[in-house]
Amino acid sequence: MDPRHAILFEPVQIGPKTLPNRFYQVPHASGFGAVKPRTHAAFRGIKAEGGWGGVCTDYAPVSPDADETWAVASDVWDDDDAKRLGLVADAIHVHGALAGIELYHGGSESLNGESRYARVAPSQVGGEWRWSSLPREMTRDDIDRIQRDFVAAARRARDVGFDIVYVYGAHGYLMTQMLSRTTNRRTDGYGGSLQNRARFQYETLEKVREAVGDDCAIAIRTAVAPGVELDGIDHEEMLELVRIVDPVVDLFDVNVGGWPEDSGTSRYYAEGHQLPWTSRVREATAKPIVGVGRFTNPDTMAAVIRSGNFDLIGAARPAIADPFLPTKIREGRLDEIRECTGANLCILRSETFRHVSCIQNATAGEEYRRGWHPEKYDAPADPSRAILVVGGGPAGMECALVLGRRGFDAVHIVEAEPELGGKLRWTRRLPTLGDWGRVIDHRVIALAKLPNVEVILGRRMTASEILDYGADTVVIATGSSWMGDGAQPYRYDRIVGAATALTPERVMAGERPPQGRVVVYDTDGYYVGAGMAELLRLEGYDVLLATSLPRVSPTSDASLEGDFLRQHLHDLGVEFATGVVVHEIADGEVRGETEFGDAWSAVCDGVVLVTQQQSDDALHRELVADPVALAASGVRQVLLIGDAAAPRLPSEAVFDGHRVARDIELDDSTAPRPWLREAPTV
Amino acid sequence: MDPRHAILFEPVQIGPKTLPNRFYQVPHASGFGAVKPRTHAAFRGIKAEGGWGGVCTDYAPVSPDADETWAVASDVWDDDDAKRLGLVADAIHVHGALAGIELYHGGSESLNGESRYARVAPSQVGGEWRWSSLPREMTRDDIDRIQRDFVAAARRARDVGFDIVYVYGAHGYLMTQMLSRTTNRRTDGYGGSLQNRARFQYETLEKVREAVGDDCAIAIRTAVAPGVELDGIDHEEMLELVRIVDPVVDLFDVNVGGWPEDSGTSRYYAEGHQLPWTSRVREATAKPIVGVGRFTNPDTMAAVIRSGNFDLIGAARPAIADPFLPTKIREGRLDEIRECTGANLCILRSETFRHVSCIQNATAGEEYRRGWHPEKYDAPADPSRAILVVGGGPAGMECALVLGRRGFDAVHIVEAEPELGGKLRWTRRLPTLGDWGRVIDHRVIALAKLPNVEVILGRRMTASEILDYGADTVVIATGSSWMGDGAQPYRYDRIVGAATALTPERVMAGERPPQGRVVVYDTDGYYVGAGMAELLRLEGYDVLLATSLPRVSPTSDASLEGDFLRQHLHDLGVEFATGVVVHEIADGEVRGETEFGDAWSAVCDGVVLVTQQQSDDALHRELVADPVALAASGVRQVLLIGDAAAPRLPSEAVFDGHRVARDIELDDSTAPRPWLREAPTV
Repeated sequence: MDPRHAILFEPVQIGPKTLPNRFYQVPHASGFGAVKPRTHAAFRGIKAEGGWGGVCTDYAPVSPDADETWAVASDVWDDDDAKRLGLVADAIHVHGALAGIELYHGGSESLNGESRYARVAPSQVGGEWRWSSLPREMTRDDIDRIQRDFVAAARRARDVGFDIVYVYGAHGYLMTQMLSRTTNRRTDGYGGSLQNRARFQYETLEKVREAVGDDCAIAIRTAVAPGVELDGIDHEEMLELVRIVDPVVDLFDVNVGGWPEDSGTSRYYAEGHQLPWTSRVREATAKPIVGVGRFTNPDTMAAVIRSGNFDLIGAARPAIADPFLPTKIREGRLDEIRECTGANLCILRSETFRHVSCIQNATAGEEYRRGWHPEKYDAPADPSRAILVVGGGPAGMECALVLGRRGFDAVHIVEAEPELGGKLRWTRRLPTLGDWGRVIDHRVIALAKLPNVEVILGRRMTASEILDYGADTVVIATGSSWMGDGAQPYRYDRIVGAATALTPERVMAGERPPQGRVVVYDTDGYYVGAGMAELLRLEGYDVLLATSLPRVSPTSDASLEGDFLRQHLHDLGVEFATGVVVHEIADGEVRGETEFGDAWSAVCDGVVLVTQQQSDDALHRELVADPVALAASGVRQVLLIGDAAAPRLPSEAVFDGHRVARDIELDDSTAPRPWLREAPTV
Repeated sequence: MDPRHAILFEPVQIGPKTLPNRFYQVPHASGFGAVKPRTHAAFRGIKAEGGWGGVCTDYAPVSPDADETWAVASDVWDDDDAKRLGLVADAIHVHGALAGIELYHGGSESLNGESRYARVAPSQVGGEWRWSSLPREMTRDDIDRIQRDFVAAARRARDVGFDIVYVYGAHGYLMTQMLSRTTNRRTDGYGGSLQNRARFQYETLEKVREAVGDDCAIAIRTAVAPGVELDGIDHEEMLELVRIVDPVVDLFDVNVGGWPEDSGTSRYYAEGHQLPWTSRVREATAKPIVGVGRFTNPDTMAAVIRSGNFDLIGAARPAIADPFLPTKIREGRLDEIRECTGANLCILRSETFRHVSCIQNATAGEEYRRGWHPEKYDAPADPSRAILVVGGGPAGMECALVLGRRGFDAVHIVEAEPELGGKLRWTRRLPTLGDWGRVIDHRVIALAKLPNVEVILGRRMTASEILDYGADTVVIATGSSWMGDGAQPYRYDRIVGAATALTPERVMAGERPPQGRVVVYDTDGYYVGAGMAELLRLEGYDVLLATSLPRVSPTSDASLEGDFLRQHLHDLGVEFATGVVVHEIADGEVRGETEFGDAWSAVCDGVVLVTQQQSDDALHRELVADPVALAASGVRQVLLIGDAAAPRLPSEAVFDGHRVARDIELDDSTAPRPWLREAPTV
């Protein structure tokens, strides 16, 4: 270990408990919660194994009127819930870490979809995300009841082994609604002055502390940036709140005001971007403080601790990307850290699909159900099997890396371009997407360390060269490219005149439309269309970003980027047209129709089409079309992975490469296989 | 029974099975699927009890690459799934009905969020709802495997007792993708001619029939309207498909092309609107046919059967609204039928919250978890308790109805207006929303039949009148109204100059802006803003519908109305402005800002504000503020229900009234109570 990093491994006392070091996985959603208890336990347990001294759950609703179904949360409404969560605490304890639980009530932001109870809130003010529906104003009975619910949940959590009990006071939920002048318009003792608006939070903490404070550390999560989410709370008031609750709190977990900024993506926020705000909490308390900032650099972490601003290094995303980050720092294996890219695919997949995943760590969420460990691999039954991976993009790199770590004698990865990386090579050169390049960098370094993996660059293979290569198994990972004919998903209409337009690859290879006005037409809805628009705008083009979808880049909404992305492009002067379908490019304009079927057109000097990708799978087709030649050449297996099979989110390409490498002994490792599922028993 | 309806109760042979009558609950989603097996079983079982001769499940994915998580479906991947689904079949059999299961593969529309497998599809064409992600083209191995998956799933279903096994061939999923020239661009034996494009479906049916056809009826769901969803299939081709698969099918379940039209809401589609298309299937087959059309009128049903077009009356929504519809027809109790309103709140809640519900039937989805029966009620412990319900809107009517049916000696419901109905009285007068009035009509008739319920109209009660009324229990159901000051959800900004604008209630009471251009400003996002815009436009106003939300009426998207609603308003000439926040009305314009913070304004002659509702709970506040007076007057309990507690979706107001009436013996029937939950055991 670098001695400068020793400070990160000091134990820290929080209330009655001692954290073994300063690495702390703050509460964050996973999609597992109380519904997939074993999946959840394994997902948290691996972080404790990797060296995180404190590991927390998802948010934990304390009662049915904070019901988060359909979302998934760590419900702690009754003893059965507690039993399920006990598995999580146990999995954390096995490795000597402390287990934390974040008790939660959503107030006017609760879903209550399954419970069907009215939401409750300090006052009858609608929630930000709950359209067409208003909460019930909390009565005095509600206040007492919800405080009892917090206490009962805290007792349950303590009884199944949790060491740290949170009262969740950030991100716009009930505690924040109570604090805010905007949402709290009460005229009783819980409204008006800050002291009154803080009363509910103080009393809840006090009661929870009274119930379990001898056994558990009492933590609060609180937000300290000015007015990001709730107009009615300013920064100085939040510091005053810290002073008010200080006597009943053992640990302050601090972040900035709201979701899009907290968990900000690398596109718009650098490592530690929250520090100017969060570091000021030290002015108000001498108690331990934990804060986040997508920290992956141990020098930065040590500097933050030495500054005295934080006592613990909080992490959600960096701990998903590398559960063994603390161990690697402790052992001085810094170049082995899988650094979080800040792409927020974890959040996108957790929000959209209720199953967390990671572009850097394919094993995230697979620890229980597929039995995958992020640092351990099964040795092959037959190490002598020679494997050729054709294509060095994310899927191919990951596949070769896992095959190499599994211990096959000879794994060759052959890439046509002079560098590894596939389409991420040009993606990282798009404005704001530089950190996505960490997916490449990590694997280039890791592959170079494996003596049994040979990386061959600048060689574009033909089918006959592959047949002659001497491999037993061939993995085709040749990626995908954007179609130049304007074929669009679902409709699959071609665009007349598409040949005059550019594709993203051609733009990134240096081609440009004539100076003037460019239409970027996007039917994909993620980062490429927006990236083209920004790139060309920064070069001085007038840019119209037109999309067939209802919003610009809707996929970015689930990664918490959408609002920032649209504002950012708007501020740069990019114009938008949504819900338009382009049929033709001719006579200096694009022509098509609106979502209502009306004619639509836009004058332009050039067009970039971001419509549909197609798999570059010609090599695979050629190989499998001739089984006789395959048999003759000794190739027993030809596999197709990543975007060459199906262009998808980059996390899924990495996952695909990883999965096939783990399963390569199977006859057909691309066919769906069962996994361990969790469901009610009958 | 009316003898004209006797035809509906004839048995029908389908393959090796006999349906006891012609009432048939077609497959439809519930939010329960394989995840809440007991909830699911009770939800389907009650329909069998109510007289439906055939009752089907949700769609049932046959393999992990048709994984529908986060949505909920009746997965039938393995024997544990089958065991859970066996509960559903058992619950249906108890009442002598046949149980059906709809085997499903989504192809390019599968979510695969949990499985993380690439979607498969006939060709690499993106799905309509799956942005930023493309499927893998199915290999010949995939075709064989998926057919094996269908067969294995059919065997499992047969083994746990299902009588009818579907191969799902409608709604744009894998079978449809194979049929469509747009999405099937294959050059092998599964692409090209109709015969080729139908091959996958034919072979799958044939193999399923071979496996279970002796024990089960083989059904296909197929869509027959022209080009609604998939450009590449026309009506004549669909009829030809029916002819092709006829030899291997026992039951044709037919509907129109795609989702928004199938399950069309009453706003835009009348009862039986599909008949012009679906009735043509008879040209192509002599096998039994079932079709839907939101049929609630037994005369229409009998006429459809007599026409020979359908053999069975299919229903999803009408069977949710009234599980006992067949029994009521059989017993001639036609005026007791709870007719489906076609509001699609069932779908909205199933889609949004993964738990079906119904504006007409509060017990839907509550049969297991809360133990509610749609036609049976617990007798009260103390029938002599006198109950006064103040307010005759949806919540108050439902509450009085359930209290009356429970058998309390004296239930009085007092309404200030001359008619029952609350805000639905004017909602039903909005363009296209007439059928929502069925919520009122059903309850007016039902209340009139209860000798123990007195309905008092045109009496606006004061608190002192309530105290003097002689009631033990007072239920306040006084509803809510739109705020005139422009207070907006979440922000709670008032609008300067709001006093010059109209509210929806004032418009419905007959007030109008000056002729010319009207801005309807909607921050609610459901039917009221759109309704105001349509009403005024039909009267000749120029209308701009401005909303702070990202789309016009986003809540309507979940009820499958959004696209129709926006097109309909657009066709009428209503203009839209989305993502704008209004701060001020002055000098003949509304002023505010765009989602990007730029200044925005619109010239207008008048404004209607559809911003936020507030509960009309003054009576409740006055009563509970004086416990001494309550005690002195003998009032033991004052309850607040429906929109008077929290303005929500109308289905939730009905639910609230129902729940409080079932639970009125509890000290505080408004507090959250546990229900029977289903989760993995530890």
